[in-house]
Amino acid sequence: MTDDNRRLVLAQRPTGLVDDATVELRRVPVPEPEEGEALVRVRYLSIDPTIRTWMNDAPGYLPPIGVGEVIRSGGIGEVVSSTSDEYHRGDLVFGMVGWQDFCVADSGASRMQVLPPGIDPMAAINVFGVTGMTAYFGLLEVGRMREGDVVVVSGAAGATGSSVGQIARAKGAGKVIGIAGGPEKCAWVVDELGFDAAIDYKTDGVARRLHEEAPDGVDLYFDNVGGEVLNAALGNLAMRGRVVLCGAISAYNAASPPPGPSNYVSLITRRGRMEGFIILDYVDRFAEAQADILTWLLDGRLKHVEHVVEGLEHAPDALNLLFTGGNTGKVVVKL
Amino acid sequence: MTDDNRRLVLAQRPTGLVDDATVELRRVPVPEPEEGEALVRVRYLSIDPTIRTWMNDAPGYLPPIGVGEVIRSGGIGEVVSSTSDEYHRGDLVFGMVGWQDFCVADSGASRMQVLPPGIDPMAAINVFGVTGMTAYFGLLEVGRMREGDVVVVSGAAGATGSSVGQIARAKGAGKVIGIAGGPEKCAWVVDELGFDAAIDYKTDGVARRLHEEAPDGVDLYFDNVGGEVLNAALGNLAMRGRVVLCGAISAYNAASPPPGPSNYVSLITRRGRMEGFIILDYVDRFAEAQADILTWLLDGRLKHVEHVVEGLEHAPDALNLLFTGGNTGKVVVKL
Repeated sequence: MTDDNRRLVLAQRPTGLVDDATVELRRVPVPEPEEGEALVRVRYLSIDPTIRTWMNDAPGYLPPIGVGEVIRSGGIGEVVSSTSDEYHRGDLVFGMVGWQDFCVADSGASRMQVLPPGIDPMAAINVFGVTGMTAYFGLLEVGRMREGDVVVVSGAAGATGSSVGQIARAKGAGKVIGIAGGPEKCAWVVDELGFDAAIDYKTDGVARRLHEEAPDGVDLYFDNVGGEVLNAALGNLAMRGRVVLCGAISAYNAASPPPGPSNYVSLITRRGRMEGFIILDYVDRFAEAQADILTWLLDGRLKHVEHVVEGLEHAPDALNLLFTGGNTGKVVVKL
Repeated sequence: MTDDNRRLVLAQRPTGLVDDATVELRRVPVPEPEEGEALVRVRYLSIDPTIRTWMNDAPGYLPPIGVGEVIRSGGIGEVVSSTSDEYHRGDLVFGMVGWQDFCVADSGASRMQVLPPGIDPMAAINVFGVTGMTAYFGLLEVGRMREGDVVVVSGAAGATGSSVGQIARAKGAGKVIGIAGGPEKCAWVVDELGFDAAIDYKTDGVARRLHEEAPDGVDLYFDNVGGEVLNAALGNLAMRGRVVLCGAISAYNAASPPPGPSNYVSLITRRGRMEGFIILDYVDRFAEAQADILTWLLDGRLKHVEHVVEGLEHAPDALNLLFTGGNTGKVVVKL
């Protein structure tokens, strides 16, 4: 084979947004799978905030991406050749493909999930994938959402947040309030996704608006952003309120950690609970969530929306969209 | 009756430590109980950090003490006269007595608990009282302590903290680490109370020392202080670690809230949980805890130590001890 696997490797750890110095395009030979493995051509990259955390030289739930290594990323590819019983030419597979044109699927550490025929790859990468699973288990298992709960989610127009709000609606939340940046996103989550209300963190005083929209307090806050929005939610927590920590987008690009939420003391007076999770812990239970999600997709209660960026070389810009707020819905790079 | 009930009322809300302007000594008539009530002479005041929070004009789990009202406080008194079937002359009773010489016990909102004859009033006010109950339910119920857990407690030489560490030992913790201020307190919790290790937050780098003492991380951190110590514990949390929020002594005297714990993001990567509680929610279950505590008192596994201050007029100074670190063990004012 010739030198035609394009691959984006980590050239230098970023201190804020990813820039030209962060990644380097290398052309390497297309990998040659061993016996029992499959060669996969990458079709779509799942662009998730967690990728940015892997670029830091800091301990996390997975090791940092090494300098010189391909950027770790979930995605969907197509099997182009295989000597494995598990993968067949033409199969669409989901897994950790990385920011590159080709990867290898095996039956061990690089195992991939074969998508059932007929499934929309955009649904697979979004609501049936890690994004939808994160929303589902975070809301229902970690947050123990109950019927009638006042549910608030930040990053409401993003991939995870938009699913959280819709799942809360489908599961009988008393009120679903989204926090998003800008009037368009706020209108979108209410008009298109069926949220009951939206708060624009860029112009509204979040603490005051939360108090208006949830005068009896917030029963469940699903946090994707951290920072001041988390603090406002803690200050408006209802008795026995729960804060589900999913991410902290506002902090991922900070050179030093931003101040923590001083309102954490509300957890004492209101008997509250704040708990984090990593979706990898729920892999064994994805099937039960996917069955619910299929039901809601079919009956129209759950919509999935993708923001598609074309071209591997634009993956770094696509990642930055998550932090500049340039996307609505799930960011996907199409190769 | 003559004017001889001395009473300390809130004269002015404090901004830091309580000072001469905060409380005012008033002499009022000894109360005259109604039919079915009892007159109680106050013998001991239970001096707890939460009293300081009640002096602020801020919402809490109980309403603030009003300006001009007696300082709310738990304590023990002796029944001096009674027309109630529940209370008899000479009974020692436990309840919300307030900072005063006399109060009234009734069968409603001002109900008090009659101590069984023969019980040491110091044990009653400490380990059988709210202090011991807070340690017990916070550690075992909120924190779900398991055998083998590495348990860390701040305010370790204080009333609650000293019980937390001893109960953790009695329940089979893998290691019990106390955080306290100064070498004497650190030596005391190890030598006298049987903690495995102690960290002096005044001179040691708490984060570094925690990492040394708990290289695999902290399974359960019982927080009495907040601030930098809480942040250090969050940064050293073990996988599925739990943070029990009991109090935030470092913040109670601050005019504006100190920064929150920026390391709260560890709760995500380590799947941690941080939860607050108020001991009043566990009143119905005090008997089960008291049975365990009696066992440990009798077999020597639990010691209770009081720091006794003499004289009602010194109650404000006694309260300040909790924030200046002047006490070892439970602070009690003897009238």
